[in-house]
Amino acid sequence: MRPPASALLTDLYELTMLQAYFDEGMQDTAVFELFVRVLPPQRNFLVAAGLEQALDYLENLHFTADELAWLAGTGRFRPSFVDGLRDFRFTGDVHAMREGTVFFANEPVLRIEAPIGQAQFVESRLINLVNYSTLIASKAARCVLAAPGRLLVDFGLRRAHGAEAGLLAARASYLAGFAGSATVLAGQQFGIPVFGTMAHSYIEAHALETEAFERFAASQPDNVTLLIDTYDTEAAAARVVRLAPTLRRQGVKLVSVRLDSGDLTAHSRRVRAILDAGGLGDVRIFASGNLDEQRITRLLAAGAPIDGFGIGTHLTTSADAPALDSAYKLEVYAGEARRKRSEGKATWPGAKQVHRWLGADGRLARDRVALLAEAGAGAGGEALLQPVMRAGRRLAPAEPLAALRSHAAAELARLPEPLRALEPVAADAAYAVEISAGLRELAARLDQLAH
Amino acid sequence: MRPPASALLTDLYELTMLQAYFDEGMQDTAVFELFVRVLPPQRNFLVAAGLEQALDYLENLHFTADELAWLAGTGRFRPSFVDGLRDFRFTGDVHAMREGTVFFANEPVLRIEAPIGQAQFVESRLINLVNYSTLIASKAARCVLAAPGRLLVDFGLRRAHGAEAGLLAARASYLAGFAGSATVLAGQQFGIPVFGTMAHSYIEAHALETEAFERFAASQPDNVTLLIDTYDTEAAAARVVRLAPTLRRQGVKLVSVRLDSGDLTAHSRRVRAILDAGGLGDVRIFASGNLDEQRITRLLAAGAPIDGFGIGTHLTTSADAPALDSAYKLEVYAGEARRKRSEGKATWPGAKQVHRWLGADGRLARDRVALLAEAGAGAGGEALLQPVMRAGRRLAPAEPLAALRSHAAAELARLPEPLRALEPVAADAAYAVEISAGLRELAARLDQLAH
Repeated sequence: MRPPASALLTDLYELTMLQAYFDEGMQDTAVFELFVRVLPPQRNFLVAAGLEQALDYLENLHFTADELAWLAGTGRFRPSFVDGLRDFRFTGDVHAMREGTVFFANEPVLRIEAPIGQAQFVESRLINLVNYSTLIASKAARCVLAAPGRLLVDFGLRRAHGAEAGLLAARASYLAGFAGSATVLAGQQFGIPVFGTMAHSYIEAHALETEAFERFAASQPDNVTLLIDTYDTEAAAARVVRLAPTLRRQGVKLVSVRLDSGDLTAHSRRVRAILDAGGLGDVRIFASGNLDEQRITRLLAAGAPIDGFGIGTHLTTSADAPALDSAYKLEVYAGEARRKRSEGKATWPGAKQVHRWLGADGRLARDRVALLAEAGAGAGGEALLQPVMRAGRRLAPAEPLAALRSHAAAELARLPEPLRALEPVAADAAYAVEISAGLRELAARLDQLAH
Repeated sequence: MRPPASALLTDLYELTMLQAYFDEGMQDTAVFELFVRVLPPQRNFLVAAGLEQALDYLENLHFTADELAWLAGTGRFRPSFVDGLRDFRFTGDVHAMREGTVFFANEPVLRIEAPIGQAQFVESRLINLVNYSTLIASKAARCVLAAPGRLLVDFGLRRAHGAEAGLLAARASYLAGFAGSATVLAGQQFGIPVFGTMAHSYIEAHALETEAFERFAASQPDNVTLLIDTYDTEAAAARVVRLAPTLRRQGVKLVSVRLDSGDLTAHSRRVRAILDAGGLGDVRIFASGNLDEQRITRLLAAGAPIDGFGIGTHLTTSADAPALDSAYKLEVYAGEARRKRSEGKATWPGAKQVHRWLGADGRLARDRVALLAEAGAGAGGEALLQPVMRAGRRLAPAEPLAALRSHAAAELARLPEPLRALEPVAADAAYAVEISAGLRELAARLDQLAH
């Protein structure tokens, strides 16, 4: 299953504007940029993700015969326009930040150049894809920072918002440093390591907890995690110790036990002691149950001997910040810079580049958003937007997820210390994103124009 | 596009447990129930939705040859088990609440009876589907209560969490009383009315705002909404007035203007005055821009003359409560009631029914959750769980969305007054959901069992 890419997964106005451009014969090149206006208060940085899905969408965009017939049947569009959609494709160029790159407010992560109808039409789905994966990669990165050296697994399919969210959350969290996901489809689609334990219902379906443990281990002896909180956590841990010699004789590799309820600090300490006293010092403790980066931080600060965490709902819904203020705005049409001036929503005009400079410590020092044409604006810095698609075709095959994951890890490693904190950074420690002089001048000049 | 229904869209443990049940020859009937443990603090009631998608999933569940080959290739499962999955289908019975029904914590919305392997396996996707649609229908119902008589439109595809969320949010919000959605695919898939205006980029792509208005109207003259906040809202309203005679001559039906930024109360008042003074008393004002039920309530309380609202991000992410504490729990296996006793997560055992009684005013008075077998427990009340699937086949075709929408409207109309408030209801005014005597006795009895 590729992410569904029906061309009808769009807002109606993308189609009505497309018809208007068609009627007007407007087909000059437009430059649109996708960026986040303001970071959520709970985020000190974002991690770009979903660009691969965006390119996939652009490369495969077309209307099927059924979709065209349906559009014609609505009576909303003129037949000549609907006929013309038969050959509608995305034929433009794309520059993008590499997935896994850390970015900030007002920095374009994607720049699209295409005939205006096409460039406009792809807005809804591009935002939909980049917004969600970026949201989850950014949330996952916080979990990774909160739990150094721990095994983190995405457990959130069930509470994710639908199928695609479940699937893409697995990818985005893996990219940001999770060890894997419980979602099987993410294994098949993306080669992401898949993890799993057992549910309480499995234990309950057996008369005795010990019997459930033994039978489950016998069925998949190579890598066993036993869930021990169905009735009494410590009693179950003692059962695991008593069962261990039998399991060992049967060739079972008992890897960990899972806690899913109650006071995880207290339980993990007592369970650790029971396991250690029973000669199971190598059996790890894995915890789950309504966890997020804040709770993990508290558990680790309290010294809870937990080796891994399953993070579900809070990860896949980005519960403390379930949306980004993402926008996709027209910056240039027919060679002229454009600017939205709506109150509180004004945008920086013109085609732009994001330049980044590192400090002597190798960490991010400052960024500058400047006009593409602005000579010297990025001298000595790294240009974050790179060409990825030309005339509607990718310039290179999709990068392996492992490479993107390494890139994200390197990005997190060079975050300045204040930005690594889970709490909102103080205003005077916020990361410096400069708006170039050329950009400010252009915006001021455009504001003088009458419309 | 039907919602993607790959059998691999599940948690790994569903497969490892399935193999264990297969190895053990455990195939007695299990009863699982799907319910919400605790309502989010911001919700006084929930509206059941997503059951149609759940039945669709159950009826079509199977592994494709590719999926089986991939599973075999992982080396995690025994060949005999993977071979057996070729014929894996859901062959069980389902009872469910009708979509649009108001419900509360601890009330099953779905009861599944099937051989335990099947009943267990479907957990992840059933929760995924019912959780999200219920979340959105419940959020949308609050918007409907906040904006009586106003036109409400789902504008939230772009910030919804992926494709399926965007699509299902359109359906769930329409079911709960929205007039429609901007999402075109929701029109094609579900016959939901589709609404649309224009983007700021369209205005900006033209040198003059007036020119953009005129050309857009010429392209789709039957139903025109003009976006007037790109540069200066009141100046644009005056332009609309000046343009109106021309548009009228050209046969354009100007329906409304849209505001998307700034102080919506002040702008809507001034725009209303400009339109009225210009003879455009019948042109309606439509507002959008980071709206939710709280902001709409404040706008209407302030007397803002706004006739309709586009609600986006807050709706499709249910931003103030982006997840429900949904659970799918084993209640009976092989004829014996089962109970999870984990701390803070204990469940009520046994196969259950939800009974509802109305007051003399026709409004909801109280509910009782009782054992199916409990004689007299529902006397005089309505039984909310009704049979919808037998032996894996739907008992009736999908109900038309219009009928479900009427049902939801009737449900909202019979909500007790305190529950209709947007603010959390006081503890002493919370809706009465009784746990029957039989259920309490059964739970107490099960707690005595050793495991």
